[in-house]
Amino acid sequence: MTNKWYVGVDVGGTTIKMAFVTENGEIAAKWEIPTNTEEQGIQIPKDIAAAIRLNLDQLGESEQKLSAIGLGAPGFIEMETGFIYKAVNIGWTDFPLKEILEKETGLRVTVDNDANVAALGEMWKGAGDGASDLLCVTLGTGVGGGIISNGKIVHGVNGMAGEIGHITAIADGGVSCNCGKTGCIETIASATGIARLAETGLVQHPESKLQSILVSDGEVTAKDVFEAAEAGDSFAAEIVEKVSFHLGLVVANLANSINPKKIVIGGGVSKAGDGLLTPLTTQFNRFALPRVAEGAEIEIATLGNDAGVIGAAWLAKISSPSPLNKHTV
Amino acid sequence: MTNKWYVGVDVGGTTIKMAFVTENGEIAAKWEIPTNTEEQGIQIPKDIAAAIRLNLDQLGESEQKLSAIGLGAPGFIEMETGFIYKAVNIGWTDFPLKEILEKETGLRVTVDNDANVAALGEMWKGAGDGASDLLCVTLGTGVGGGIISNGKIVHGVNGMAGEIGHITAIADGGVSCNCGKTGCIETIASATGIARLAETGLVQHPESKLQSILVSDGEVTAKDVFEAAEAGDSFAAEIVEKVSFHLGLVVANLANSINPKKIVIGGGVSKAGDGLLTPLTTQFNRFALPRVAEGAEIEIATLGNDAGVIGAAWLAKISSPSPLNKHTV
Repeated sequence: MTNKWYVGVDVGGTTIKMAFVTENGEIAAKWEIPTNTEEQGIQIPKDIAAAIRLNLDQLGESEQKLSAIGLGAPGFIEMETGFIYKAVNIGWTDFPLKEILEKETGLRVTVDNDANVAALGEMWKGAGDGASDLLCVTLGTGVGGGIISNGKIVHGVNGMAGEIGHITAIADGGVSCNCGKTGCIETIASATGIARLAETGLVQHPESKLQSILVSDGEVTAKDVFEAAEAGDSFAAEIVEKVSFHLGLVVANLANSINPKKIVIGGGVSKAGDGLLTPLTTQFNRFALPRVAEGAEIEIATLGNDAGVIGAAWLAKISSPSPLNKHTV
Repeated sequence: MTNKWYVGVDVGGTTIKMAFVTENGEIAAKWEIPTNTEEQGIQIPKDIAAAIRLNLDQLGESEQKLSAIGLGAPGFIEMETGFIYKAVNIGWTDFPLKEILEKETGLRVTVDNDANVAALGEMWKGAGDGASDLLCVTLGTGVGGGIISNGKIVHGVNGMAGEIGHITAIADGGVSCNCGKTGCIETIASATGIARLAETGLVQHPESKLQSILVSDGEVTAKDVFEAAEAGDSFAAEIVEKVSFHLGLVVANLANSINPKKIVIGGGVSKAGDGLLTPLTTQFNRFALPRVAEGAEIEIATLGNDAGVIGAAWLAKISSPSPLNKHTV
């Protein structure tokens, strides 16, 4: 057992989250830097390298303390080469991220999709609790996901595996999705989708307390909907029921196919806690095969914003050629 | 390269298919024996061992010619130990198949679920064409499946992965399924499901030529439906459209999650060929993300009844401790 650190990096459109993570997955230090999206994000590797050096200095450590970097980023990524085809929110197009960051830091770099990396984090140190068959569902502005099977991320043939937000929940007559299709589960179970269901439905439900929120705030959020449902508002409860029905069906259908041990629900919407988990579990159990339901535990993600940096550190750990770093959880 | 053979065994409720298979996946000899389901199937390992010896003798080969046995069986199986919890059609309950068959033959035995083994066969030598991300859908009396990711079978936490027949296609008001749920894709896209759609729908469609088949044969089969659709019968075409819609949606939703390179459609219903493949591909492309659809090829299985024995031989090959047998396709 060395006492070296991995560097976990979670690149987002606004900030880059970074951490030094121990062999055991404990965060030794964490910080954020702004994402410099100017000039198609070309400065980002330099910024990351500088932040690593700065934080090492502040902690009184040398570069020898670090063994490797793992990084999660949004967009289309070729994992083997760490090449980013396209990351719209960052600005990267045909960007050889791994190559550049390795040059800037002198450390081995491993790159994967941010949703996959968050799933690895939850597997290692979060609600996934070491399960090597795991489905991670992230309910945020959109709906993302990561699938782990036999302890490894399922990437698929061109890196699209885990795009569960675009599973069709309503085959005919669904709402348009950003992806170009209609009726995707993202249009229903994302924070945006839930807010839309509330705002469009309020016309028929002026009695709902969400009406006054719409008037005072100019919008209704997913959080408002779960809080109103909790407080007994029947229209809000109807929306929660609808979201749970569609999401439970999608997740159960997927579970019937991949038979996960843990289903981890993360993202902003998951902060509703039992207000989401209870109706979701009911619908899941309705549509999953009994033995599949028996084998699966649905849980709310526990790592929050740290899932990305911890999962990125795991990625660095399992990609390490060192015999000290075994491929075990 | 040795010139040893693997023994591939595919245990079904009526017959046991067996083959000697070369390192390259070519069948050197194949044969069938009846499945002796008496006394809870206790004689089966002895029957398999005797059949191996008999066929070796007939080919003038000794037991040294054989390196290992792979076996596919229906039911709930613990893969690591080759223990069968329950195989209803065979009679096995809590049956230590691997242990007994190893004793009977002196060869190493590896056991997996028959649908998974068929998927491995198609991956190795059939329509899967070596793809390490593959989805196999078997449309027979029921609907089965096998998922291969990163070149390995996805088993899930308790061996239920790939049970795609029980994905819910009709959430409300679907027909009862053998599994206890309703609206499973098996109730629509299996041979039985297609026949049921025809027979129940004929009341409203006395003009269909399927009517006279029902009268003369006492039943309508899936084959009748595809043939009538091909010949221009509009009611039959409507059924094919309905089956393709539901199956295309289910397969596309799964593809959005696991992003396979090959989707191999097997089983009796797949004999319809382009009559199924063309409308199915249309519906698939409608519901799959563009990049997922680009990455995937849908094909009809090519190995037919040999998929099981060839896949079982592959299972023996990749489980082999010999350095000659690499984990590559």
